[in-house]
Amino acid sequence: MKEIGVGLLGFGTIGAGVVDILQNGGELLAERAGLKLTLRRIADIDIKTDRGVPVDPALLTTDAESVIADPGVDVIVELIGGTTIAKTLICKSIAAGKPVVTANKALLAEHGAEIWALAAQKDVDVSFEAAVCGGIPLIRALREGLVANRIASIVGILNGTCNYILTRMERDRLAFDTVLKQAQESGYAEADPSLDIDGIDTAHKATILASLAYGFQVPMGAVHTEGIRGLAPIDIEYALDLGYRIKLLAVIRAMDGEVAVHVHPTLIALDHLLASVGDVFNAVLIDGERTGPTLYYGKGAGRYPTASAVVGDVVDLARNLAFESPRRVPVGIRPDRHGRVREMGGVVMRHYLRVSLLDKPGVFGQLGTVLGKHGVSIASVLQKEVRADAYVPVVIVTHRAAEKNIQSAIDEIDATDITGSPTVRIRIEDF
Amino acid sequence: MKEIGVGLLGFGTIGAGVVDILQNGGELLAERAGLKLTLRRIADIDIKTDRGVPVDPALLTTDAESVIADPGVDVIVELIGGTTIAKTLICKSIAAGKPVVTANKALLAEHGAEIWALAAQKDVDVSFEAAVCGGIPLIRALREGLVANRIASIVGILNGTCNYILTRMERDRLAFDTVLKQAQESGYAEADPSLDIDGIDTAHKATILASLAYGFQVPMGAVHTEGIRGLAPIDIEYALDLGYRIKLLAVIRAMDGEVAVHVHPTLIALDHLLASVGDVFNAVLIDGERTGPTLYYGKGAGRYPTASAVVGDVVDLARNLAFESPRRVPVGIRPDRHGRVREMGGVVMRHYLRVSLLDKPGVFGQLGTVLGKHGVSIASVLQKEVRADAYVPVVIVTHRAAEKNIQSAIDEIDATDITGSPTVRIRIEDF
Repeated sequence: MKEIGVGLLGFGTIGAGVVDILQNGGELLAERAGLKLTLRRIADIDIKTDRGVPVDPALLTTDAESVIADPGVDVIVELIGGTTIAKTLICKSIAAGKPVVTANKALLAEHGAEIWALAAQKDVDVSFEAAVCGGIPLIRALREGLVANRIASIVGILNGTCNYILTRMERDRLAFDTVLKQAQESGYAEADPSLDIDGIDTAHKATILASLAYGFQVPMGAVHTEGIRGLAPIDIEYALDLGYRIKLLAVIRAMDGEVAVHVHPTLIALDHLLASVGDVFNAVLIDGERTGPTLYYGKGAGRYPTASAVVGDVVDLARNLAFESPRRVPVGIRPDRHGRVREMGGVVMRHYLRVSLLDKPGVFGQLGTVLGKHGVSIASVLQKEVRADAYVPVVIVTHRAAEKNIQSAIDEIDATDITGSPTVRIRIEDF
Repeated sequence: MKEIGVGLLGFGTIGAGVVDILQNGGELLAERAGLKLTLRRIADIDIKTDRGVPVDPALLTTDAESVIADPGVDVIVELIGGTTIAKTLICKSIAAGKPVVTANKALLAEHGAEIWALAAQKDVDVSFEAAVCGGIPLIRALREGLVANRIASIVGILNGTCNYILTRMERDRLAFDTVLKQAQESGYAEADPSLDIDGIDTAHKATILASLAYGFQVPMGAVHTEGIRGLAPIDIEYALDLGYRIKLLAVIRAMDGEVAVHVHPTLIALDHLLASVGDVFNAVLIDGERTGPTLYYGKGAGRYPTASAVVGDVVDLARNLAFESPRRVPVGIRPDRHGRVREMGGVVMRHYLRVSLLDKPGVFGQLGTVLGKHGVSIASVLQKEVRADAYVPVVIVTHRAAEKNIQSAIDEIDATDITGSPTVRIRIEDF
């Protein structure tokens, strides 16, 4: 049985999971792949700490480049993360003619075009199932299963930390800071949670998905990104009253020759399938021209779900090596191809607005007039509380309006003296 | 650009969809595949009727065998259906060394082992994404994406006709016969609906999934199969009261060296993701050893979703031809491998029972005693109506009990004089 050597760069959480699967699941993999996958080298800065996975010390080295150069290593697995060292090592692997499996979403979001161009030049694979929604075979579904479809849209919950926090905020009626702290204690959020909480991780993944779906590198800078940091429990409750749940969504949609890509908290109907995706789970709704809506759900992070995706790619690339079929499924993102990403100002959606409105006669008319002046019409209003305070929360759901119009309307409203605090605005996705 | 010739056997609904995609989506496919897919021949008994898809008459023939023999045809697409002619033609294609794409679930469920053994012998691919849940790239996810996972269980809604009927029965509070008739008028159910309604189509698909997941041909005869024909609106309502929705489920579960495979109406918790899958949509929950739960959702039938899956396979096999990598992903069902399918009697689940109980003192105790005698204990009871009738419906949810014990309990209850009509039993899936 042909043997394929695997060199692992990065012996962190996911790396340990990959080592475990290759060592303990080796027989099953060999049977299914018809190939023996042998872990040959593991490189990391730290080769002393016990990772909880038994490993032959002879495999360990601090010298990543020696792993790439090792003639017994056929496939490189990059699980270091980050956009500097990882980039250098991936490019060196490609230059050495060795295919790479990576989980590095930040790197691919920012430097994907360059990396895939280099890979195409050297006719070498770079696979990345693990970079977007861990355990769910999403990239394979998009690139291969849906090959006969133009993609109309992709809408997804791509970050487990944020989804977990939103689920707990709603279920336990707690403030964001409280839940974040608990999430950190439980290991669902990092000590520095900003990458997740501020939507950046979601934007990385959205960038990769959009680039794949439309064949050109969507620049990270073009992706409007908002996280969940500012979300107040009161908005979660009002949303529920109106029949919606708030999720941090990545929205990717093709229209009129442009692609809109944006990340932000979003109201979705309670009876929509995505609204039932809670806790740490991820889900991605891909609307294909021929299939109509398809959805892929599972754990987007964690040692074993992510390692499963990495090993799935290793098997795939091992098959390519065995059959001498590099880039059998080309990544399809051509650096020479430029596409148009819609300016956020031109994105049209419905909006939830919570206005802190002065409790005085005529004020609502004034509000309606400002909205109308900017082309924003009101679909529904919810005003629940009559308080002794000068200001009461008035919740408005608008009809569809372009982002720039809504923004101008909000700016004007907030500049008047009829509001007590800045208007809260959350977009609504209608699918 | 290398060209791959496609020969289509069967110009029905799906065949017309495939022709449309190949002819109108040809450029997109060529760009993504790096190969030109050319439709060379179309065989059908009827080559006169307009299918609504323009086609060069020179492609049409009534001679299927000539299509297989045509040197310009590299991949055969079998969309005839059924287990006789289709089987002969598929086997002839394999004997001629030509890979096959099929959507034929009945054939694979009943003769899969034979066909894949022949294919393995001739080192030829037989692909079948379209045979299970149409547009959803499920087979690819299971065989490739989840390659690093032993499969703990697969639970699915695999038939759109039944799911549509159940959704309508609940939403519009209608009887089964009424909804079936409407479904037939709307084209959601066939004139002879038994294949769908009686669970046979679901059982075909379950057989294929279970065989794939566990590496041996699960015999159709071993799959306990019940459809939705007998379902009463009152049970749908009681289920809702108890917090459940009724779905026609395929349940596949590995335990103690055996695989249980069974198809029947099943109560599932309203807050479970599968409960949100309605109308014609299908969804399959695959619990992988490493990934944990993953779910795949989409349209399981219809011209374009199914044709999308067929063309996805054609592209895949075209790549295999171009790279000379036949059976790159072996089907993995070894005819020499025999596995154990658990007898239905040994399957343990919770149960919903609706007993038509004589309204007399002491009768409930008698019921409880019979259940207890068979090792069935009661988790909850719902008795809503006090009627003038002699008999009242008493709804019981049991704790986990083996099928044979529940069946004996029900048989004994129904043989007494305390019941007015046969006890209704619906199984409960707890995932």
